[in-house]
Amino acid sequence: MTNFASVASNLGTVTKGALNGALHPLRSVRMAGRLVHRSGRKPGAPPGSLVHSGPQKVEKVRLRLFEYDADRLQERTLEDVSEAFAIRDNPPVGWVNVDGLHDTDILGQIRDSFGIHLLVMEDVLTLGQRAKMEEYEGYLFFVLPMLTFDEDTLTVHAEQLSLVLGPSWVLTFQERFGDVLEPVRERLRNGHGRIRQRGSDYLAYALIDAVVDRYFGILEKLGDVAEDLEEAVMEDPAPEVLHRINHLKKELLLLRRSIWPLREALSAFARTESELVAEGTQIFVRDVYDHAIQVIDTVETLRDLTGGMTDLYLSSVGQRTNEVMKVLTIMASIFIPLTFMAGIYGMNFDVMPELHVPWAYPVLWLVMLAVAGAMVWYFRKKKWF
Amino acid sequence: MTNFASVASNLGTVTKGALNGALHPLRSVRMAGRLVHRSGRKPGAPPGSLVHSGPQKVEKVRLRLFEYDADRLQERTLEDVSEAFAIRDNPPVGWVNVDGLHDTDILGQIRDSFGIHLLVMEDVLTLGQRAKMEEYEGYLFFVLPMLTFDEDTLTVHAEQLSLVLGPSWVLTFQERFGDVLEPVRERLRNGHGRIRQRGSDYLAYALIDAVVDRYFGILEKLGDVAEDLEEAVMEDPAPEVLHRINHLKKELLLLRRSIWPLREALSAFARTESELVAEGTQIFVRDVYDHAIQVIDTVETLRDLTGGMTDLYLSSVGQRTNEVMKVLTIMASIFIPLTFMAGIYGMNFDVMPELHVPWAYPVLWLVMLAVAGAMVWYFRKKKWF
Amino acid sequence: MTNFASVASNLGTVTKGALNGALHPLRSVRMAGRLVHRSGRKPGAPPGSLVHSGPQKVEKVRLRLFEYDADRLQERTLEDVSEAFAIRDNPPVGWVNVDGLHDTDILGQIRDSFGIHLLVMEDVLTLGQRAKMEEYEGYLFFVLPMLTFDEDTLTVHAEQLSLVLGPSWVLTFQERFGDVLEPVRERLRNGHGRIRQRGSDYLAYALIDAVVDRYFGILEKLGDVAEDLEEAVMEDPAPEVLHRINHLKKELLLLRRSIWPLREALSAFARTESELVAEGTQIFVRDVYDHAIQVIDTVETLRDLTGGMTDLYLSSVGQRTNEVMKVLTIMASIFIPLTFMAGIYGMNFDVMPELHVPWAYPVLWLVMLAVAGAMVWYFRKKKWF
Amino acid sequence: MTNFASVASNLGTVTKGALNGALHPLRSVRMAGRLVHRSGRKPGAPPGSLVHSGPQKVEKVRLRLFEYDADRLQERTLEDVSEAFAIRDNPPVGWVNVDGLHDTDILGQIRDSFGIHLLVMEDVLTLGQRAKMEEYEGYLFFVLPMLTFDEDTLTVHAEQLSLVLGPSWVLTFQERFGDVLEPVRERLRNGHGRIRQRGSDYLAYALIDAVVDRYFGILEKLGDVAEDLEEAVMEDPAPEVLHRINHLKKELLLLRRSIWPLREALSAFARTESELVAEGTQIFVRDVYDHAIQVIDTVETLRDLTGGMTDLYLSSVGQRTNEVMKVLTIMASIFIPLTFMAGIYGMNFDVMPELHVPWAYPVLWLVMLAVAGAMVWYFRKKKWF
Amino acid sequence: MTNFASVASNLGTVTKGALNGALHPLRSVRMAGRLVHRSGRKPGAPPGSLVHSGPQKVEKVRLRLFEYDADRLQERTLEDVSEAFAIRDNPPVGWVNVDGLHDTDILGQIRDSFGIHLLVMEDVLTLGQRAKMEEYEGYLFFVLPMLTFDEDTLTVHAEQLSLVLGPSWVLTFQERFGDVLEPVRERLRNGHGRIRQRGSDYLAYALIDAVVDRYFGILEKLGDVAEDLEEAVMEDPAPEVLHRINHLKKELLLLRRSIWPLREALSAFARTESELVAEGTQIFVRDVYDHAIQVIDTVETLRDLTGGMTDLYLSSVGQRTNEVMKVLTIMASIFIPLTFMAGIYGMNFDVMPELHVPWAYPVLWLVMLAVAGAMVWYFRKKKWF
Repeated sequence: MTNFASVASNLGTVTKGALNGALHPLRSVRMAGRLVHRSGRKPGAPPGSLVHSGPQKVEKVRLRLFEYDADRLQERTLEDVSEAFAIRDNPPVGWVNVDGLHDTDILGQIRDSFGIHLLVMEDVLTLGQRAKMEEYEGYLFFVLPMLTFDEDTLTVHAEQLSLVLGPSWVLTFQERFGDVLEPVRERLRNGHGRIRQRGSDYLAYALIDAVVDRYFGILEKLGDVAEDLEEAVMEDPAPEVLHRINHLKKELLLLRRSIWPLREALSAFARTESELVAEGTQIFVRDVYDHAIQVIDTVETLRDLTGGMTDLYLSSVGQRTNEVMKVLTIMASIFIPLTFMAGIYGMNFDVMPELHVPWAYPVLWLVMLAVAGAMVWYFRKKKWF
Repeated sequence: MTNFASVASNLGTVTKGALNGALHPLRSVRMAGRLVHRSGRKPGAPPGSLVHSGPQKVEKVRLRLFEYDADRLQERTLEDVSEAFAIRDNPPVGWVNVDGLHDTDILGQIRDSFGIHLLVMEDVLTLGQRAKMEEYEGYLFFVLPMLTFDEDTLTVHAEQLSLVLGPSWVLTFQERFGDVLEPVRERLRNGHGRIRQRGSDYLAYALIDAVVDRYFGILEKLGDVAEDLEEAVMEDPAPEVLHRINHLKKELLLLRRSIWPLREALSAFARTESELVAEGTQIFVRDVYDHAIQVIDTVETLRDLTGGMTDLYLSSVGQRTNEVMKVLTIMASIFIPLTFMAGIYGMNFDVMPELHVPWAYPVLWLVMLAVAGAMVWYFRKKKWF
Repeated sequence: MTNFASVASNLGTVTKGALNGALHPLRSVRMAGRLVHRSGRKPGAPPGSLVHSGPQKVEKVRLRLFEYDADRLQERTLEDVSEAFAIRDNPPVGWVNVDGLHDTDILGQIRDSFGIHLLVMEDVLTLGQRAKMEEYEGYLFFVLPMLTFDEDTLTVHAEQLSLVLGPSWVLTFQERFGDVLEPVRERLRNGHGRIRQRGSDYLAYALIDAVVDRYFGILEKLGDVAEDLEEAVMEDPAPEVLHRINHLKKELLLLRRSIWPLREALSAFARTESELVAEGTQIFVRDVYDHAIQVIDTVETLRDLTGGMTDLYLSSVGQRTNEVMKVLTIMASIFIPLTFMAGIYGMNFDVMPELHVPWAYPVLWLVMLAVAGAMVWYFRKKKWF
Repeated sequence: MTNFASVASNLGTVTKGALNGALHPLRSVRMAGRLVHRSGRKPGAPPGSLVHSGPQKVEKVRLRLFEYDADRLQERTLEDVSEAFAIRDNPPVGWVNVDGLHDTDILGQIRDSFGIHLLVMEDVLTLGQRAKMEEYEGYLFFVLPMLTFDEDTLTVHAEQLSLVLGPSWVLTFQERFGDVLEPVRERLRNGHGRIRQRGSDYLAYALIDAVVDRYFGILEKLGDVAEDLEEAVMEDPAPEVLHRINHLKKELLLLRRSIWPLREALSAFARTESELVAEGTQIFVRDVYDHAIQVIDTVETLRDLTGGMTDLYLSSVGQRTNEVMKVLTIMASIFIPLTFMAGIYGMNFDVMPELHVPWAYPVLWLVMLAVAGAMVWYFRKKKWF
Repeated sequence: MTNFASVASNLGTVTKGALNGALHPLRSVRMAGRLVHRSGRKPGAPPGSLVHSGPQKVEKVRLRLFEYDADRLQERTLEDVSEAFAIRDNPPVGWVNVDGLHDTDILGQIRDSFGIHLLVMEDVLTLGQRAKMEEYEGYLFFVLPMLTFDEDTLTVHAEQLSLVLGPSWVLTFQERFGDVLEPVRERLRNGHGRIRQRGSDYLAYALIDAVVDRYFGILEKLGDVAEDLEEAVMEDPAPEVLHRINHLKKELLLLRRSIWPLREALSAFARTESELVAEGTQIFVRDVYDHAIQVIDTVETLRDLTGGMTDLYLSSVGQRTNEVMKVLTIMASIFIPLTFMAGIYGMNFDVMPELHVPWAYPVLWLVMLAVAGAMVWYFRKKKWF
């Protein structure tokens, strides 16, 4: 998770508050942290410097190693980073997962040992990057947004997964422990499926697939939020609803920004001519590319839906103003002429013959009722009520 | 039909209700089911697992076989899936149609017998996918949205047709029985037209053509709905009309999302260099591609039309508010000064000379009429009524 | 003209009515007929079947033949379709024009005699198609929208011109008699210009050029309509004006949809490497392509202009509401305090010393005038009148 | 200048009038003339006919000749068109400038003598065309919009410059005398700069550069207009301001339409492989291409700015309506209850004990002040004033 | 900084004023200077003339020289431009930085000595150009926008950095002293990092990277401004807020216009096949290209966010109008009927039996309370308060 974590969780609580009618706490909502990401490097530092700029998310870096072929699987947590270097030369497949990025010393050792380019390791540390795939001599480098949805705050959080795919090894880097990759670990342990028979390229595919698969669940939840809002707009267009629409729009904006570049990255992966990726694996990559397209499609559709809601809201408010106006106009139009008539006979002129006619008072009542009736008839004709 | 069937039929009834003036049932409208589709595989399952996630739509899987050449036609319902395998090696053309996807065992046997890739069969089970064509070694794979229109609920339902085109055989998979492909079966039985003389590629074309042909009828109906709404907006811009516009917009949004990818899929089919497709057939494919373009064109035009309706509605409401305001202003402006005058001569000052002038009362009436007349003249000049 | 002719002419009358203030007839406006075109073929019929689905526009199919070279010209109306077949082998140039599409027997004979593909002849019968150019073995096939403008109804009607260009012959098909191609016939008869010296490709160019040339006149008229509307919006934003804007928008939408595909069709014609088109002719085709681009450009500009009108209209209405509000507020704000003052001295308390002061009444008048004056001054300062 | 000149100058005066508050003259604003351009050819005339359709802008066609090399320069006005033909064979560089297009005889002679295609000369006469570059055998043909800004009417006028670039000569055609190309003539006369050392391609570049350079001045002026309007919108959103915004939008729309195709034309010029253009010249053409891109960029930015103004205007009007409403509501809410109280004690019931309490009258005043005070306090709290 | 500096700083002060509530000073805000840039050349001057058109920003041109290899670094300020010429032939790397562009004599000498094209040096003087990279024989030319953010005026200022990259030298030109490139100088001095080991291409990369790195800081600040505005819109939609939104939109518009062309320029740099750029450097260029994409992405997202704010503002105003209306309607609807009743019994008819009933007065009070209560109940039911 990037360094806007604390901000984002504020946002969560606050938005929730807004749903319950409290408005002021929204003051503290901040999304700039999620919007603008500086490069990890300190301004002025030479490129490739390893600097961890965000808050430290885990107490201690955890290194987990999986080494397997079709027949055996070894899984252990490493005490020292140097134990990881063996997978470089140890076929068939080794995977080292690094949770925690604050110990730049460890990262430096991995970089040097696996012969990874300076800029690649800088990118690993630079959180909030666009998804991409880059081909280097001897390895491929992926950056992927790993999304989670905070149901309390209706907020999408993005964590960066960096993945380096070598001939017989995969390295993954994330800022803290997470369960997105757990299904892949489970499949490795169970040994069923193709995963244990295949190489590191298939492992990389499986990890990316697990990341993309997560998006569907998030989209389902955002779809539910969108539908709740649509009902709310139709039934009770309170200002809070508008704020929630606005919140959803922002979440979708950030979500779209996260996953749009994925298209290009996965397309590059599917079309790569690198020797690292077997042809049989590319059919699978094409499949996860299709999933990504579908996710993008759905986000666009959700955005279209949400965009229409503001119009709905505005027209609901306009409709209500119109209704209020009608009530006012009906009341005023009926009573203003009557009050005028009453005013007439409240005058104190010496000579006002009507005042002395005995049946004038009841007649005036009849006239008044007739006027009021005519008004009511007119408004009925206009279908005002 | 995908697993949002029950939801969608709720939507239908409810929307219908909305048309009759009842608003509250709209609460239960849900489109998320139609919007977000998970991949068929359970999260965490290895790719290629055959899992049927949606509700079971038919009691028993039905397998129907057509085997034909120019001279003879054999049509029968298969008891056992193994009877279908013969078409693989039995020229000229065999077509197996599978209605019902819940029996993953049958699908697994078909997959293994026809040598179909794991991911293809997973796609067959993953409902709600984007239209696509994929070339595999020895066969082509199509996913197509098969649309039906529920006239009661004014809702478009999408069912997925999966089609595998081999050298002398075609496999089609759908979730339940449907009549979209019936015209092709009829032409096969009648034996007229080119269809019996040609190979499996022409059969695949004919099936896709039948699917696309359905769209025109749906567009005609949506066009009618759009025109009804346009009239309603002009004549009586009630809030229900806005909800119906919104409903139509959503249907068009989903429809567009379904058929837009078709363009690419059919274009790929028309341009394929696969040996499976004869050159003579590609002219026909180009024709169905043209139809798809025309469908997309029409959907876009309908969307443009519907988009303009919200503006029309808003301006109608604004116009009405304006009219209400005018009535209020006319009433108030005429009577407020008159009431003031009556109030003046209702005062109880000891010294008010006018009160004692005998003709003061009729003169006041004349003044009042003059003031009212001036107001009326002013509003007439402003063309307020 | 396609089968929406009767509908469209209704539309015309009605719209005209709307301009004169009558609104209700707009009920019967229907554009779906012009929007959604089914393929000509009956649903379920095999592709290539010749079925004429629309109403019959002319009593009898008319076949007109032009045969010419630089020195001689033969023009005659054919009694029997078989007379037309001679042009196939009779250089230099023969042109057969078919007015009326209901006699599918004649079309079938032409198809077979000239060796035209089944789908081409189906397209000739399928009205309302997108403009296109298709290359076939031995001939080129064009579909072009031939537009006319009904000045009474301010409606654009589209008729389909199908054109087949062979080595030494041209076939054209339209639904009924029309004068769009008359200028070309005139030039053929006069023998001036290049047309009689050149081949069938130049004739095809000349026919397409005549069709495209028509568009400019229609755009001029739509431009006039747009300007009239713009004036109307500024001067008197009545609801009818909005309906007319809406009508214009729809016409432009349909027009755009008709001519946009022309771009691609003519671009393909200009770039074709077919032997049927001489290089010298392609310079001319490039010219008509330029015209088409200019037409599209103008339609887009008109759409931009018309799109802005809705905003203008809405802001005019908003402005008027604001003015009405001001009148109301001025009236009410001036008289409500005065009425209150009059009310005070109409009270019947035993002890109200002011009532007995002799100069109280004139003083009250002065106070009232002062209050009214202050109000007027305040509203003047606010520039409300 | 095209044939909408008289129209356009009307527009000018009128718009100016609108700025001074007069609205009605806007009735006569017409832009269709500037929007829709027919091809120069009469409908039905064969392509390539030389017909001058617009009004005659100059009394007599003026032909000006420049012949030069690095050492000498000859500049003269030709009496007869045949004198111009010498430049065809007279290296190094000759430039003939034709002011006035109504004498089609002269144009015909030039066409025949320089071997220019029929359609090129038709294009020279067809005013209001899109900018373009076309390569012909032995020469290049350019159409360029030459813009001037009428400061009185705030209107952009477009004149067409046609330019034919041959191996050692340049022909330019315009409808009337203008000063846009004067800077190039001046540089030729002064002999400083590269222009006299280089060939006809550099001359063509210099002329196009002079045309494009003019655009910057026009953009500066339109930028000023836009800023004036923005201030006006913020300070005093009168309806006239909206009309002026609308006028500016239309000018920008037409401007954009004029210069957008320039991009493609100049890009083709910069990338041409024609022998007519030396490689050294293409660096300069790339430079003028960059300028054109910058012009387009600026027009788009101005359009974005102007587009936002309508929103600003609408929200200003909405804000004002809101303010008017507040004044009305404050006045009414304060005095309506007070008037009611006064009404109560104006009633004539026999038994109304309060009337006889001596201190009732001052107490009522206190109550009234309290009520009014409470109202004022409430509205203050709501920040209504 | 370009020649709109004085204007821009006015803008700054004024906008700040607007934030504090003063509106009128906004009158003097001018952005045309930042929007439209003339080419540096005087109109009519031959291309390549060196003319400095803007105001002089520094008293004296300052020339700073860096000469270095891995082991040594020489840094000095040059007295005379001719001292700079040595770097042309003095490997490994020399960098001359020119601060101040008004001394065209110096620029002319540099141009001639380094063999730079006339148009390149003209571009150096033409401020406000689009970012670009151009390849020339023997050197590459870059134009880059160097942005700074004025926190007082919330305004983005753009200065142009021109950079010429030769085989062993780099020339940079800017209008005045600035600190954007200081981090690179610092790294050169410290000698740590790769920069001293590598060639002139890496130096050019490092300079461009420093420029792009600046953007992130500016985006962070604009992001903060956007969030402040969003809160303000929700809490207190005053007209000033709208002006500030408008100001932010304009800044983002100009920012986007500055950095959008950067994408193409850096992409060209990353893909260049020039011998001047080592392959190892291109990996770094790709990195800075990624940063530029991320900046563009963020600007677009900010624009989306800001665009939605106008809608939020408008709906807030509409909501407030609605609230005001409700207060008015409630007040009027409760008291108008009561006032009417009081008016009735204020009439002076001789015969009004009710007046003489002793308990009539209290009964009337009860009736009035009932009417008022009914009204309150009705409005409560409608949820108006």
